[in-house]
Amino acid sequence: MSAAELDEMIKALSHPLRRDILHWLKQPELFFADQEHPLSFGVCAGMIDRQAGVSQSTVSAHLATLLRAGFISSKKLGQWNFFMRNEAVIQQFIARLNEQL
Amino acid sequence: MSAAELDEMIKALSHPLRRDILHWLKQPELFFADQEHPLSFGVCAGMIDRQAGVSQSTVSAHLATLLRAGFISSKKLGQWNFFMRNEAVIQQFIARLNEQL
Repeated sequence: MSAAELDEMIKALSHPLRRDILHWLKQPELFFADQEHPLSFGVCAGMIDRQAGVSQSTVSAHLATLLRAGFISSKKLGQWNFFMRNEAVIQQFIARLNEQL
Repeated sequence: MSAAELDEMIKALSHPLRRDILHWLKQPELFFADQEHPLSFGVCAGMIDRQAGVSQSTVSAHLATLLRAGFISSKKLGQWNFFMRNEAVIQQFIARLNEQL
């Protein structure tokens, strides 16, 4: 993880909605219990839009930022996009930050 | 610590030099051993400039950002400005981030 990558990851966390999304995806059974597809697929974009209470395009931009930073990954199944946390990356990030601070 | 405060703290960490400054101030005896004033006063701006290897005004702007975010505090003694970490704030920040992620 280079300093530039770390910069990008930190910037990705500087918006409260992006931190919320990561938090929601940590316990999908708590926030997205009524998703029709199994939560093991991840959480579909529409559910995240609804939970966020903002427009689809806004959520989509925030998801793209989190994807670029490596905090989440996505999987396309049919017409649906599912999102899930990259737990290993998040843990690596926290460890690196703890170490550097 | 509000979401807006957390945003500002995260943004303050998004520059590698600001993370370096926090890291250097964690072990001043390692990075600033030759400071004439006791390190218990904190580390004076000139020493940080030298360690950073960039201009005084650049370092000064970065220090101001860290001060605003609450990560460091400063003390004026005579003509000198000394800087030190706010350990409690940094620990609170790390705990909050761990919790939210």
